[in-house]
Amino acid sequence: MKFESGFGVLGGDARQIAMAESIASDGYAVTAFGFDNVDFLGKIKKADLKDTVKSCENIILPLPVTRDGVHLKMDYSNEKIVLNDAFAKLFYKKRVFGGGMEHLSQTSTLWQTFDTHDYSLREEFAVKNAVPTAEGAIEIAIREFPGTLNGSHCLVTGFGRIGKVLSWMLRGIGANVTVSARKLPDLAWIKSCGYSAVLTQQAGEGKYDLVFNTVPAFVFSRSVLMEMKGCPLMIDLASLPGGIDLTAAKEKGICVIQALALPGKIAPKAAGEIIKDTIYHMLKEGQRLEFE
Amino acid sequence: MKFESGFGVLGGDARQIAMAESIASDGYAVTAFGFDNVDFLGKIKKADLKDTVKSCENIILPLPVTRDGVHLKMDYSNEKIVLNDAFAKLFYKKRVFGGGMEHLSQTSTLWQTFDTHDYSLREEFAVKNAVPTAEGAIEIAIREFPGTLNGSHCLVTGFGRIGKVLSWMLRGIGANVTVSARKLPDLAWIKSCGYSAVLTQQAGEGKYDLVFNTVPAFVFSRSVLMEMKGCPLMIDLASLPGGIDLTAAKEKGICVIQALALPGKIAPKAAGEIIKDTIYHMLKEGQRLEFE
Amino acid sequence: MKFESGFGVLGGDARQIAMAESIASDGYAVTAFGFDNVDFLGKIKKADLKDTVKSCENIILPLPVTRDGVHLKMDYSNEKIVLNDAFAKLFYKKRVFGGGMEHLSQTSTLWQTFDTHDYSLREEFAVKNAVPTAEGAIEIAIREFPGTLNGSHCLVTGFGRIGKVLSWMLRGIGANVTVSARKLPDLAWIKSCGYSAVLTQQAGEGKYDLVFNTVPAFVFSRSVLMEMKGCPLMIDLASLPGGIDLTAAKEKGICVIQALALPGKIAPKAAGEIIKDTIYHMLKEGQRLEFE
Amino acid sequence: MKFESGFGVLGGDARQIAMAESIASDGYAVTAFGFDNVDFLGKIKKADLKDTVKSCENIILPLPVTRDGVHLKMDYSNEKIVLNDAFAKLFYKKRVFGGGMEHLSQTSTLWQTFDTHDYSLREEFAVKNAVPTAEGAIEIAIREFPGTLNGSHCLVTGFGRIGKVLSWMLRGIGANVTVSARKLPDLAWIKSCGYSAVLTQQAGEGKYDLVFNTVPAFVFSRSVLMEMKGCPLMIDLASLPGGIDLTAAKEKGICVIQALALPGKIAPKAAGEIIKDTIYHMLKEGQRLEFE
Repeated sequence: MKFESGFGVLGGDARQIAMAESIASDGYAVTAFGFDNVDFLGKIKKADLKDTVKSCENIILPLPVTRDGVHLKMDYSNEKIVLNDAFAKLFYKKRVFGGGMEHLSQTSTLWQTFDTHDYSLREEFAVKNAVPTAEGAIEIAIREFPGTLNGSHCLVTGFGRIGKVLSWMLRGIGANVTVSARKLPDLAWIKSCGYSAVLTQQAGEGKYDLVFNTVPAFVFSRSVLMEMKGCPLMIDLASLPGGIDLTAAKEKGICVIQALALPGKIAPKAAGEIIKDTIYHMLKEGQRLEFE
Repeated sequence: MKFESGFGVLGGDARQIAMAESIASDGYAVTAFGFDNVDFLGKIKKADLKDTVKSCENIILPLPVTRDGVHLKMDYSNEKIVLNDAFAKLFYKKRVFGGGMEHLSQTSTLWQTFDTHDYSLREEFAVKNAVPTAEGAIEIAIREFPGTLNGSHCLVTGFGRIGKVLSWMLRGIGANVTVSARKLPDLAWIKSCGYSAVLTQQAGEGKYDLVFNTVPAFVFSRSVLMEMKGCPLMIDLASLPGGIDLTAAKEKGICVIQALALPGKIAPKAAGEIIKDTIYHMLKEGQRLEFE
Repeated sequence: MKFESGFGVLGGDARQIAMAESIASDGYAVTAFGFDNVDFLGKIKKADLKDTVKSCENIILPLPVTRDGVHLKMDYSNEKIVLNDAFAKLFYKKRVFGGGMEHLSQTSTLWQTFDTHDYSLREEFAVKNAVPTAEGAIEIAIREFPGTLNGSHCLVTGFGRIGKVLSWMLRGIGANVTVSARKLPDLAWIKSCGYSAVLTQQAGEGKYDLVFNTVPAFVFSRSVLMEMKGCPLMIDLASLPGGIDLTAAKEKGICVIQALALPGKIAPKAAGEIIKDTIYHMLKEGQRLEFE
Repeated sequence: MKFESGFGVLGGDARQIAMAESIASDGYAVTAFGFDNVDFLGKIKKADLKDTVKSCENIILPLPVTRDGVHLKMDYSNEKIVLNDAFAKLFYKKRVFGGGMEHLSQTSTLWQTFDTHDYSLREEFAVKNAVPTAEGAIEIAIREFPGTLNGSHCLVTGFGRIGKVLSWMLRGIGANVTVSARKLPDLAWIKSCGYSAVLTQQAGEGKYDLVFNTVPAFVFSRSVLMEMKGCPLMIDLASLPGGIDLTAAKEKGICVIQALALPGKIAPKAAGEIIKDTIYHMLKEGQRLEFE
């Protein structure tokens, strides 16, 4: 299936560069704004904001669209684009894709009536990003842990998307993996995959060399940390404020690494292609709906 | 946590024998009816129907409770127990566990007001049974396929519970595994596990040595089978009527093996312990509720 | 690389049938003797002994060439071919391949001067056969063990070819695998693969659900068996007399399954192709030598 | 088994620190020289060179003993210890362990008659070090490759110790792994582990995202590189000069990372414990010989 018109890429980070290049290599016209000193591979036209939007039916905003709630995220430009009614007006009759679009909506009421799509809310987007996240966690663990992961005792808290991929990879390089979860079916899944299973409330009871937290809740409170055996290296993958009491950890001499936004850091090309694939899927579904 | 009273086991197959023995080895009093010539390991009292029910607070019926809708399933007894009001009346004020309990309900209106529980509907029960089912499928595949699974090309249709465990095990012994699914997130999961992914409607397009169907829908219709390349060995794990057109398969010379109820056949001890564990969980949840 | 002349297949079992069919499907002329009621797939000519040998430059004898030291192994024929000088004379100026050829040599001194090759002595032959052997062991284990292999505790004695493949597959379906070996480097290898390692002399100390013996020595003597914890299912893969004291095992109530010649039983097609591939390799090496 | 006397640790890098701490935690007296500013964990006595040697029966030299052939390797000291007869004389009647001891022998003829042992020549030492080497290679690959290893196409050249562990781990995190080797049995092993197999001379023919070279020979010469498809990231794990023509690679725009001495960099604690375990084994074997 082919899409009838080009793509405009507005701002972002290394993922958007990879995404733009990947879209161009699929044969689509790509216009980009917000990448002042970037030398794109492949045929990508640079233009100013207005021309970029005007010339393309599909506009792709970054993930997140904005960090401060005021300006468009543009890591590769010194220009500052303010998100307001004037900005929003440009996108009248356009198909707009972005990540974390709820923050954009707050910058202008116009967005309510526009054709916007949040690729970061799609399930397949989240599943695919679990892969570079897990690899990033493993990269940190190999680099920072003075032993080898092979043969080590690892705890992964949570059996959601990241927990599933990460525990699978850790076993795949020969770690002894324990996974914590709250629900009985999850505990059954965990055991069937060759891991040990513990209830989340017992996550602090075992003795581990490494702990990977994926649960966005305060699993490792002061009391849990204080009763924990040994001094594992802890890698917190949960979004801020994370699941570990940093003050208590420091007191006990436990090293905690907060690892966020790993896909963009560790695998920008993969992360860019995940965004691209998700947008393609959304476009295809849209086309199908039109014809039904 | 300990349960205050004993267990009565009424009928069933090898799984109930293993279950009864396992409950007894946990230290509970177990009374059994419907196992005429069975020499139980451990301390299990045999009694007639009435005494069994009378002496126990918790009664465990088989899976399924009945095959014909009329009699209690009792593979190890020549007696015939009819399911009717008289039978139901025995269980007044008892806690009754069974599998496929909707068929029991149809034998007497009394059951509506009784304290009944269907362990076969529990998610963790289904997850755990996926393991012996997958092993059973592998046993058949090794036995019947004239090549080795290692290095062979296998298709698993469906990425539900059985599909997940089976594809994982097949890769674990070195098969090249392709899994079919309908949803985008599932396709992303499939790829992240090291399998090839295809859409279910394209399941017939590849060339495979073995096909394991787990989808309870007519995936391999006549037209799909006729266009399929080669003559894979097909193992149908979906409940009857299965997902393969048997007539068309026969015409094309494709060997189809319908493999049902594998846990009880291949691993009765494991299957019995799964039932036990599920009932224990239900009892614990019940106790917790009482105290809340 | 193509071989200049056809292949004569003399006797054997299901592996030779599969081998003959596979050679024929590669485009070579195949003549077969000793398969009275076999309907070969593909273009295979049946002939009597003399014509088969006369018409082919390469002759393939079975594995083993003889069971009783007197007759050619021919599972698919009622004829009896005696191995003696008269038989040997037929093969003058022929290239003769077989398995266990030392037994053939004893039937006539003529063989000493003939061009004979034993495919069963080749390292790659033994490596490849470890795969169907391991799968056969797993098939037996799934079928006979009343629990699931997934989650069970398995001991594999010996880290030779079969031990390596079998332990890898067992872990691949989720068993907890312990492997015994005698040498330090092997123990290091075992641990790096995610298994537990024990010294062979301590193999009897742990508690296991299943024991797979691959060591052709008396590892499980009476004293070892008597001190062993529990009653594991034991599968002996070592060639006769095996490594387990059967009398002592019986006394202790341990079930021992002697599993021999698994490739031909469990995967005749794979086993036949392994013989074919090995013979092809030997022929290629021979040709290369001639031209050097 | 306990060793009757203490250990003197002379110089080295982070591995020797970890090793010394690990020996001390086993309850042995440890004296160390050459770690000026190091705060050891546990009970380790610092002393000067002479006192260290005098007070201990077992002396452990670093790996390698010397980098320049003239001085003792001491990364944590500003002092310079010259290796000569005077140095050697200190070790009269001592048991001396070190890595790369052939370079020490060249500094004084005295060493010929002393009781020296090279732990780096032991097979189990090399096997165990393959694990941190493989993890280090994976760390680099995750960090430098802009995609994910999961789903990527990786070539590992060579199926020796590092090749075996690395390919196993790469498959374990979901890469498509191809391994090259020269011998037929190795190709059979490679396939049985779920990898694709190619002959080493064909290693340049496929298209890969990543190439890990473990072969200490010029596998990727100019001609091979020039004919190679695509521009894989190449990680050279073979000891200098490595197996890749760096000039040709640069011309083609291929990024080559030379990754050496990974165990000490990536996992000093593991690497130190490997040295310790190897020395313990050598001591045990020595004791056993004495008593035989």
